Parts: sequence; C-alpha cells; structure tokens
Amino acid sequence: MSDSRQLRMGMVGGGEGAFIGAVHRAAARFDDEACLVAGAFSSTADKSRASGRALGVADDRAYGSWEEMLARESALPEHERIDFVSIVVPNHLHFPVARAFTDAGIHVICDKPLVHTSAEARQLADLVAARRTVFAVTYNYSGYPLVKQARHLVTSGALGDVRKIVVAYYQGWLTTALEEQGHKQAAWRTDPERAGAGAIGDIGSHAEQLARYVTGSRVRELCADVHTFVPGRRIDDDVSVLLRFDNGARGTLVASQVCTGSENDLQLSVWGTQGRLRWRQEEPNALLVSSTSGVEQIWRRGNDALCDAARNATRLPPGHPEAFHEAFANVYRNAFAAIRADAGGLDAGRTYDFPDVQDGAVGVRFIETTLASGASDRKWTPM
Amino acid sequence: MSDSRQLRMGMVGGGEGAFIGAVHRAAARFDDEACLVAGAFSSTADKSRASGRALGVADDRAYGSWEEMLARESALPEHERIDFVSIVVPNHLHFPVARAFTDAGIHVICDKPLVHTSAEARQLADLVAARRTVFAVTYNYSGYPLVKQARHLVTSGALGDVRKIVVAYYQGWLTTALEEQGHKQAAWRTDPERAGAGAIGDIGSHAEQLARYVTGSRVRELCADVHTFVPGRRIDDDVSVLLRFDNGARGTLVASQVCTGSENDLQLSVWGTQGRLRWRQEEPNALLVSSTSGVEQIWRRGNDALCDAARNATRLPPGHPEAFHEAFANVYRNAFAAIRADAGGLDAGRTYDFPDVQDGAVGVRFIETTLASGASDRKWTPM
Amino acid sequence: MSDSRQLRMGMVGGGEGAFIGAVHRAAARFDDEACLVAGAFSSTADKSRASGRALGVADDRAYGSWEEMLARESALPEHERIDFVSIVVPNHLHFPVARAFTDAGIHVICDKPLVHTSAEARQLADLVAARRTVFAVTYNYSGYPLVKQARHLVTSGALGDVRKIVVAYYQGWLTTALEEQGHKQAAWRTDPERAGAGAIGDIGSHAEQLARYVTGSRVRELCADVHTFVPGRRIDDDVSVLLRFDNGARGTLVASQVCTGSENDLQLSVWGTQGRLRWRQEEPNALLVSSTSGVEQIWRRGNDALCDAARNATRLPPGHPEAFHEAFANVYRNAFAAIRADAGGLDAGRTYDFPDVQDGAVGVRFIETTLASGASDRKWTPM
Amino acid sequence: MSDSRQLRMGMVGGGEGAFIGAVHRAAARFDDEACLVAGAFSSTADKSRASGRALGVADDRAYGSWEEMLARESALPEHERIDFVSIVVPNHLHFPVARAFTDAGIHVICDKPLVHTSAEARQLADLVAARRTVFAVTYNYSGYPLVKQARHLVTSGALGDVRKIVVAYYQGWLTTALEEQGHKQAAWRTDPERAGAGAIGDIGSHAEQLARYVTGSRVRELCADVHTFVPGRRIDDDVSVLLRFDNGARGTLVASQVCTGSENDLQLSVWGTQGRLRWRQEEPNALLVSSTSGVEQIWRRGNDALCDAARNATRLPPGHPEAFHEAFANVYRNAFAAIRADAGGLDAGRTYDFPDVQDGAVGVRFIETTLASGASDRKWTPM
Repeated sequence: MSDSRQLRMGMVGGGEGAFIGAVHRAAARFDDEACLVAGAFSSTADKSRASGRALGVADDRAYGSWEEMLARESALPEHERIDFVSIVVPNHLHFPVARAFTDAGIHVICDKPLVHTSAEARQLADLVAARRTVFAVTYNYSGYPLVKQARHLVTSGALGDVRKIVVAYYQGWLTTALEEQGHKQAAWRTDPERAGAGAIGDIGSHAEQLARYVTGSRVRELCADVHTFVPGRRIDDDVSVLLRFDNGARGTLVASQVCTGSENDLQLSVWGTQGRLRWRQEEPNALLVSSTSGVEQIWRRGNDALCDAARNATRLPPGHPEAFHEAFANVYRNAFAAIRADAGGLDAGRTYDFPDVQDGAVGVRFIETTLASGASDRKWTPM
Repeated sequence: MSDSRQLRMGMVGGGEGAFIGAVHRAAARFDDEACLVAGAFSSTADKSRASGRALGVADDRAYGSWEEMLARESALPEHERIDFVSIVVPNHLHFPVARAFTDAGIHVICDKPLVHTSAEARQLADLVAARRTVFAVTYNYSGYPLVKQARHLVTSGALGDVRKIVVAYYQGWLTTALEEQGHKQAAWRTDPERAGAGAIGDIGSHAEQLARYVTGSRVRELCADVHTFVPGRRIDDDVSVLLRFDNGARGTLVASQVCTGSENDLQLSVWGTQGRLRWRQEEPNALLVSSTSGVEQIWRRGNDALCDAARNATRLPPGHPEAFHEAFANVYRNAFAAIRADAGGLDAGRTYDFPDVQDGAVGVRFIETTLASGASDRKWTPM
Repeated sequence: MSDSRQLRMGMVGGGEGAFIGAVHRAAARFDDEACLVAGAFSSTADKSRASGRALGVADDRAYGSWEEMLARESALPEHERIDFVSIVVPNHLHFPVARAFTDAGIHVICDKPLVHTSAEARQLADLVAARRTVFAVTYNYSGYPLVKQARHLVTSGALGDVRKIVVAYYQGWLTTALEEQGHKQAAWRTDPERAGAGAIGDIGSHAEQLARYVTGSRVRELCADVHTFVPGRRIDDDVSVLLRFDNGARGTLVASQVCTGSENDLQLSVWGTQGRLRWRQEEPNALLVSSTSGVEQIWRRGNDALCDAARNATRLPPGHPEAFHEAFANVYRNAFAAIRADAGGLDAGRTYDFPDVQDGAVGVRFIETTLASGASDRKWTPM
Repeated sequence: MSDSRQLRMGMVGGGEGAFIGAVHRAAARFDDEACLVAGAFSSTADKSRASGRALGVADDRAYGSWEEMLARESALPEHERIDFVSIVVPNHLHFPVARAFTDAGIHVICDKPLVHTSAEARQLADLVAARRTVFAVTYNYSGYPLVKQARHLVTSGALGDVRKIVVAYYQGWLTTALEEQGHKQAAWRTDPERAGAGAIGDIGSHAEQLARYVTGSRVRELCADVHTFVPGRRIDDDVSVLLRFDNGARGTLVASQVCTGSENDLQLSVWGTQGRLRWRQEEPNALLVSSTSGVEQIWRRGNDALCDAARNATRLPPGHPEAFHEAFANVYRNAFAAIRADAGGLDAGRTYDFPDVQDGAVGVRFIETTLASGASDRKWTPM
C-alpha cells in the first residue's frame, strides 16, 4: 500500500454525544493519516446520517446498521472501500462486529475490553491469525510517550528484577446511582448484559494492561475483593486485588468508580531490585525514576534522552505538553504503520508497538479471573 | 454563513519541517470545523506543491508565493475561495501578507508577534476596522481553559484589587549559538531583520499578553534590562523588566531563552488584596488559587465548577488531560465563531474571546517599549 | 502536679548510635517540658555511663540495666524520681520493661509495635487500667498536624461515609541483605526473636494505625500476601493486604521494605461518599481534600482554618515548615498533658489525643492477624 | 575549650510571645550542645524573670536590661559566665547590644538584618576582627541541607557559568494594616525607626543572602521599584529589583509582604550555561536540578549522594523530613564549632559555614542600595 495516501476509516458507533467516538476520530486524523469516509454511527439510518453529515461523511456511506455497512463497503471497489473500521459500540457488540469485519479482511481498531469471554477472544484471535488483518485494541494509556519510556527502562534492566507492582485506577463519577438518572454512559456501563463487567472491566482492564505493558510481567494468580457500593447497582463498582506475577513479583491492583473526588486517576508504581518508577495519567508528561543513588530523576516528554518508542510517540518540542488525545493517536499511528506495511496477524502488536488482539484476550482473561476470585472463598485463583 | 459547513482554510508558510505550521493545522481541524484547501507553503512552487500533497491539498491550490495565492484565490467563486488564511511565516512577512489578505476581505489568523512596528500595527488595525474582517493573533496560551478561569476569577473580583503580577517565560533552547549550526528556526529567530526582536518578541510578548488577558491590567511604564548572553548573537536573548500597571499594580516580567534546562516554562502569579492565583503552562490542567483563608484551591480542567469560558474551552471529561494542541485549537474555535457570525472588526476578539489585532498591537508596543527602555539610562519608560 | 515544672525523664535503650533514641529525646524536650535525668542506655554500665555523659545525665543515674534503674529510681524521693520512662529497646524487650515500670506506677512512653502477642498486650492494658498510669505508644505519624486535620474532616462528616481506604508504607532500605553486613538496625529488625515481625510489624503497624486514627474505621477481616524477597532473610519484608472494615469500607494496605528507591513513603488516601483526602508523610505540611465540586483543597499547617487538634500541634507560623521531629514531639506533648493532669488509665489516649496502650494492642492484633492470614489458604481472616 | 561540655547561652530579647526567640532557643539546644542560663528577655526585671522561670533560667540571671546582663555576666568567673549571647530584639537594638557584647569578648549570634547602616556594620566587623570573637547572623535559610547542596553544585561547576538568578520572597501577612490593630510584631516591623526597612529588610535581605550563598555571585548594581501598598504604612511593603552581578549574571529579586495567600514563599532559581537549579523553602527537602540532558534530578535530604556540608546538616534518615527548626539549628551548630575551636574573627563564617558579620554587612549594604535606588530616577545604582 502506498505509504503516503490517507487511509479510509469507517466507524461503528460513535454517534452524537458519544464521548469515545469523538476521541477515536480525533486520534485517527491527528497525523493526517486517515479520513473518515463511512460509518454506522447510530441504531437508525436517520440518526446515523445526521451524525455522518456533521462529520463530513457522505449520506450514502452513513449506514443504518453495521451489517449494512459491512455488506455495502465490501461491495465497493478496493480503492474506495474502507481500510479499517473503528468499533466504539458498547462492549457486548464488540464480538459480533469485530468478528464480521475481520472475517471480511478489514482491519479493526476496537475499544476495550475486547469481548465478554475468553472463548470469544480465542475465536477472534484465531480469525486474526487466519486473515492476517491488523487488529488493535485501544488500551490508549500505553500510547503515552512516558509509558513507553517506563517500559524501556524496565526491559533495558534499569530497574533490575521487578519485585513490586502497585497499580490503581480511581474514578469517582459513579459514586451515586447515575444510571437511574437517565445518564446514557452510566446506564450501559452498569448493565451486566451490555458491559460484561463494571469497574474491573471498564478501568481495571486498563490498569492490568498498563502494568503488563510496562513490566512485561504476567499475572499468574490473584485474590480479589469484588464489591458493589451503590445500592441497586447490578455490577461491581469497587475492586481490590492481590497479584502474583509469573516472574515472582507481587502487587496490588485497585479499580474503583466510587472514589468520589477522583477524576481519572490511573497510576502505576514499579519497584525492582535497582530502582523504582512512578507514573500518573493525570500528569502524563513526567516519569519519576529512582535508583539506589538517592537522586530521583524526572524524565519529560519530548527530550532526546528518551528511547525511540517514546520519542516517536510525540509531536511537540519539550515543554509543550501533549496529553490524552495524542496518546490515543499513538495507538492509531502505530496500527496504521502495520496496516501500511500489510503486517497483520498475531504478532503485529509486538512488532509495531500497539495493543493487539492477544493483549485484548489477556485482558478478558484477567476480568474473568478477577470476577471468579471475587465470588470464591479460595485465596488464590490462577489466571 | 451556514453554521455547519467546514470552513476553507488557506495557509501562508508552514512547509515541511516547520513546527508551528503543523500546530496551526491541527488546531484548525481539531473540531472538524475547517479543512485546509490552499497554501503558499514554501518559497518555491515545487516545494509548496510537495508540502501540499502531503497535506491533501490539490496541486493547483499549492501556490509558489503568497501573492499568487491571493490573486488566484480571490478569482475563485465565493463558495470555493478560502474563508481564512493562517499566516505562519517569519515575523517580518506578517505585515505585508496580513495587510494584503485583510484588504481582500479574507479573514486572517496570524502568528505573533503581529508586526515589527506600532505604525504597521496601527495600519493593520485600521484596515481591519474598515474591512470588518476577523483578525486573530495566536497568543495561544490564552486558549487554555484554566487561563480563562484565572481571568474569570480576577474579573469577578475573587482576588480583590490586583497588586502584584509576576510573569516569566523561561526557555533554554538558545543557550548556545544554535543559529551558527544550521538550525533553521534558530537562524531566523535570532536575525534582527526577520525576527524584529529576540526573546522579548518571541516569548516575552506571550508573557505580557498572558498577564494582560488574565488581569485586565495594562502596563503603564516599565524598566528593562535587555541583554544578549551568547557571544556573537545579534539579538536579545535575556530580558528582565520591572512593570507598573495602569491600575496601580506592580510586577516583573522575565523572558529568557538561555535558561538552560528550562523547556517552555511560561508561568504567571497574580496577587490581589483577597488572594493569589498561580498557573504554569507546563502543567496546564491545574490552577492554584489561595485566599486569606489559608486553604488553597486547585481548580482542574473539565469540571462543572469552572466558568463558561473555561468549560467551553475543553473537549474531554475531568482527568483526561488536554494540553497545547487543544489550547491552540481554542483560539481557532473562537475565531471561527466570529467568522461564522460574520462578526469581524475591532471588537471581535472581545466578543468572541480570542486575541485580535488590537491585542497584537499592544504586544508590538510592549516589545518596542522594552527595547527602548533597555537602550535607555532613564529608569521608567512609558508605554 | 505543678503545671509548669519540667518532667523528669528516664530512658531504657537509646545508647550511642541508636537513631530512635535521639528522636525520643528531642521530642521530649522540644517544648521545654521535660529533662532527661536517668537512663539504662546500653547493656553495660560503662557504655551506659558514656552515653549518659554525652547527654548530661549524672553518672549515678546512668544505669547498667533497666532492672537496676527501676530499683534505684523507685528508691528515690518522689521529687527526684523520674516521672516517666521512654522505652526504645528492640521490640522483644518492650513487654518486660513496660510491665515492670507500669507496675511501679511510672508513666511509660513506648516505641511500637507494643509487644509480640495479644496476650502480652492484654496484660499490659490490664495493668495500666489498674495502676492508672499514662501509657503512650509512639505511633508518631498520628502526631502530624495535618493527620489530625484529616481525622477531623472524617469525623466531622466532611467526607460523608467512608468507603475506600488505601494505605501504604514503602521503604527501600532492606532491599539487600543488610543484616548480613553488620548493620545493627537491620540485624535486630530482621531477627524474628527480637523484632517479632518484619515489614508488617515495623512499618505496617504504622500504616494500620494511621488509617484507623484518621478514619475511625477498624479492620474486621483481612487477606494478606506475606512474602520475603531477600534470600536468606528470616522475616517478612513485603506484605500486601486486602482490608474489610467494620463500617463497610474496603481497602488495601501495603508494607514493604524492599521498595528500592522509596525512602519513608507512608501515604494514605481515604474516599467517602462526599469526597477524598490524601496525605503523604514525606510532604507532611499539606493535606489534599477533594469533594464533589471538582475543586480540590490544599490545607496547610499553621493556618487558622484548621481544627483545634491541628492548630495545637504546631509551633511555627504558616509557611515555616515543621516535620518529623515536631510530629514526634506532639505525641510527647499530649502524653505530658495527661501526666500533668494525673489522667492515666485506659481512656487517657482518647482524652488527650495520643496513641495509648489500647492502640498498641490493636496494632499487635493486626500484626498477628496479618501473619496468620499470610500462612493460611483461607481467603478472609477475622481480626 | 572542651569539646563535649554544653555551651552556656544568654539571650537578649525573646520574652513571652516572641516567636523568633523560641526558635533561637530550640535551635541552640537541638543537638544538646547548649543550655540557656541567662537572659534579658524583656524590658522590665519582672517580666524578664517570669520569662526566665518558664525557661528554666535562675532568677538571679534573668536580668532587667541587657546592660545589667552584660555587667553581671562579665563579673562571673569564666566557668560560669555565658559563652555566647543570642540577640533577638528589634533591629534598631542590634547594633548597641552586639557591639557591647562583642567588645566584652562574648560570642554573638544576632538576628538579621544586622544593623541599620553600613557604617555601623563596618564598626562591628572591625570589632569582631579585633576581639576575634565568633559572630553569626541568622540567615537561617542557608542552614537548609539542600541549600548547601545547591551551593555545592554551583561551586563545583555542575551548572557551568551562572547566567540568571531569580529569587523571590513572598509573604502575605502584612496585606492589611495589621500594625494598626495592636499586632506587636507588625508594629515594630513597620516602624521605620525600629525596623530600619520594611519588606526589603525583613525578607529581601534573606533573599539576597540566599542567592549570594548559593551562587557566590555578588550584586554589582541594581534597579529597584520600592513601594508601599497599604495606606498609612510608613515603610516599604513591596519591592521589585533588577540585579546585575559581578560575574555577569543578571536577575530579579522580589520581596513583598502584601502577597495575600503566600505564606513564607522564599524561592530561588539559578541557571548556568550547563543547567538549572530550583529550591523552595516551603518544600525544603527537595532540590530540583536540570541539565542539558532533558532529565531533571530531585536531590533529597539525607542521602549519601549529597555533599559533605549537606550531609552534615541533617539528623534524620532519608524520607524523615526535617524543616525550619533544623535549618536554624544548623546555623547554631556550625557557629558552635567555631566557638569550640576558638576560631573567631572575620573568616570564621567561611571556615565553619555560617553567615557571619561580613555577610551581615553585605546584607545591610544591599538594603541601603535598594532603598536608594527606589528613591532615585537613575536606572542603575551601584552597590
């Protein structure tokens, strides 16, 4: 594929008022690499068309359903057809939509958590292996330059052997029963059928992936306290987990959406035999690194001292802060590189540094295991 | 003008490798409100076309000079012609380009400092008044939501009467004679003919505008120490200024580009009879506000507690940080609102909350006065 | 007892080179309320005398053993005899020494953890109840003014109902087998016989007490992962715990001494239905408090806005930072108030705001329960 | 003099309610090196005796005037007589008291600013040279360990050649006319006769000394805006200064006591050709150091990586914060070393690392020059 042409983007979901759809679109076009040309933005053709118009999508490519979209786009000549589809619908629709587009050979960028069950995740992974498409899962926090630098420091041995991993994701927006007050986001995210899991699925999966991405450590077994604080809520809103990793590290993970006063407080601390690193999503342009010397370092975005992956994940000079949009765009940018190189399949994420279908599958397994542990009297549940 | 259609954007300057051109383009399209359709990106037709192609601009609208661009675009039918032009060339070209496009009735978004002399600034302002076009100057730091909140706190009286204003802009990138090492940016920015002024023009003008935007105070007289630290440099690289404001406030301004280790450290502190506020560009999502109570407040982007101007200047929920690109986009967004409302002329900036030609003119006067003071033995130079 | 005379202080332990002994002495004399007059500083009479001389203690009151000290001091006339004894020996000696002095009617200020077993703790508490002496346990972190303010905010309802408590105490100094290199502190602190417990006893007990002091919540059941990272070490050096509190709150506690790069990082976050508070020992002069308003508050030491307990726990005006020594001194100061008022017994700590024998007993139970849970396959161990 | 005996301390001033007297006493005894035995604490014998009693001073050494104290102490045998006197009276009394005690061969520790005029300062310095006594001036902020580390980094060349120095001291406590409300501190500090100077004397002199201590740079000429904001106040409360240093560095100094919301915000930034350092008194345990590498370092108190002077100026392990009292105690501790070594005279401060009479004299000259500049129309006033 020509390196320079803009990729044609399709979207399933993301109609008016949907926060994450707008983020995906901004991320996709951040570097002038993609152009939105088609979408099944809403559940009716009228609404979809209205959304499409506001986004510059032609009426005849604003579809009333993803099935129609898939059928009609597949019928277009290759140089008009969408190159990839972004899936930003509620979680329970990830599986059928992602499977169908992948099966049709169309690249997929899918929101997290990937699907509801490990069985579904395996099916998707097998399909990606077979079709050799690119499949990215938007664990967007791994797109931050200093998260990449953190990963570099661990993998290059700067921290020695990893011993302790403490990761947490605190939000407060669900501290009351917002879902009973007509709040659309809250409604589906606390509906077990549509969301699959609550805090552990929505944000706990980000925390697990962040820890795994940075440290390379995989959870071997865990012990979870899964709780629902808000009366009447049908899904978990507060989860605490003890973690034991395959490499011997120990740690904790907390994911809670009833932490009143917390906004979007994803934070990671990692200690190895030689030092520590700390990163917080709300102040993403700094990475704190200690060693045995007693002098802590602050690594900042945009500097020449950073590793390649971190330097490539930035657009502005030092001191000109970048943030959430740019990190999200970095997932897209790296997936685009795989698409342009026609380098799909199971190893694409490793090669091109983006979270892929296998990462998504681990995330699903983590959610399942946490919920199982929460329901069990046994101390440790293997993953 | 229809509220919903995308505006047609032209650009003068911003060819490959130009940092600020890319920022302007990203800012313009951040909210799907504008589409780049024409440009005189470089000094030759070939280079301009190459830049245009990478940006999705048709070959016949990638011009070899701004004069050609103006002539050819003016000849297009109104529904094809560019709505506005972004001027991102070196400073000495701001005046002729801005004057010509304004004179042709085309809206202008121009980088700062506006022009080299107050005489030029007055000419431009007169022309804007006559043509009733929209004219924005990209003092982008006033686009940050928490800068708008800071302004709101001052104007609403939360700080009482303003007494002390301390503003500084520290950079370190010109700490060595980068201009002698083939660094293109450094070369024109340290060339008196092209840049007009050094640190005081490039970043001091941002600092002055930030202080003025937030406090509403105007400098009445000043006393400047203007210096060049790097041997062989032909322009100021370090400036310290004592300030006296029209409302009786006192303060200091420092603008230096030889502050090794500083990245883009624009910072403002304001004290009034009732409290203090502090803001730093490198951590733009927080505003610190103290009062006589002894309890300091941290206002954060995205919250309902913020004033309208701050809430309208944001796209993401609390805790999902926004940064430089979004602030820049806010200048564009507000200028677009004026363009769509056909509300040009001298008062547009006040009404639609963006820095306009009058703000640019004050900035030019501030630069002139500072340089004059630097060359004078008199203690106070009136502005 | 006269309000104004200086109290006569005795010390068991705290000979040359003992870090914590010097801290106790500085704390005791910070406010000119006490004067060291006697001590059994070391295990031999010679060493004890040498230490005594450097501290201004007369030779005939620098004893060779605590038994001798108790016998000789008891024989002195009341107006010469020590008023209280500070016990700063290794943990295994806390019980016999504290019991003997309490039994003799002498007030005790004892380092933590109080004793090795809950049975011993009960014995001590019974004796304190019988003798009506003052018995303070130096959980010094509860002496910080802003910890007292945090407690006030919770108890006054500013945070609503407490839901989530995350407390951690990270140290890195035992990240290698320091105990094998002749490091005296490390040697006894990693010796199960002398220390009783490792990280969970030395620092985990501080973390538990801090959470309890601030929130008033008591741990009902817990689930612990107790681990030893350093090969050859005979005691825990890394502990992670899930917590369930009597009031329904949930949380986690981490205590680790192998967190390379961490110095003395005790930190507490508490979320209630109405807000959050955060405090870190390494920056003790600030308390961060969020509410549902989206505006976070920074409460700072020394301000009139603070509660009585916080204001009484400070000596310097705002902005003149106080720290570890002063917090430690606050435990002494409040215990002195009880001594002067002759208000010993089991309720003294509640009335005079210092950690007392009952707090010490809860701490011992927490350590026991954590170690039991660590050795168990059962998920939850009641406390 | 014997190395181990406690020094006998006298005090002039510091009666009940005097904040700074208590600080001096705590500082003097912090390390068990000194014992208060005499004082002229107040202006009447009765009050002085009452203060003395609360401080453990015998009635016959609590004097009714400093003249009486000097006469009576001088008549005591050498092994009873005070070794040194701490002078904590309002500024206008520094000169007569310090001169008399120095003349009697008694060591002096004097609050700052030293005296009112350079002529007085010279007299004192001559006397110190003649009597070879130790004379310390409590510029206490130079006692902070990380200030010593900052000085070490500059003098060892880690920052390259110093170019820019920005120092400020913001307080807000005099933002209203407190002196008219019976506030004793405010009354004498805003009285030109007793204080000599206002903000520039009380806190500006600290700022100047801090900059000088850390960088070794001396102000060559300056340009000051000296102002009084509070109506009716008879002394400066807000001062901004442009600085030119003997080594070519430039900078600014702000000292203001009407900065509402600021507590005790002394802060210093220094840039050299190779890097930057930043320190703030309100968070004294950290020193931020940047270099050209783009990685900033945080140096923290108590670590082995620090220079000797910084390590010697600390009592607690890393992570156990020390603060204002300890920094003040460091001035005393180093002066004590000179006293014990009988190493008085003009070079004592240099050798033993404490601010001495010469430092005090420079401070007086700085105040004089700033006030002169404030009253002048000339741009630059030489120092």
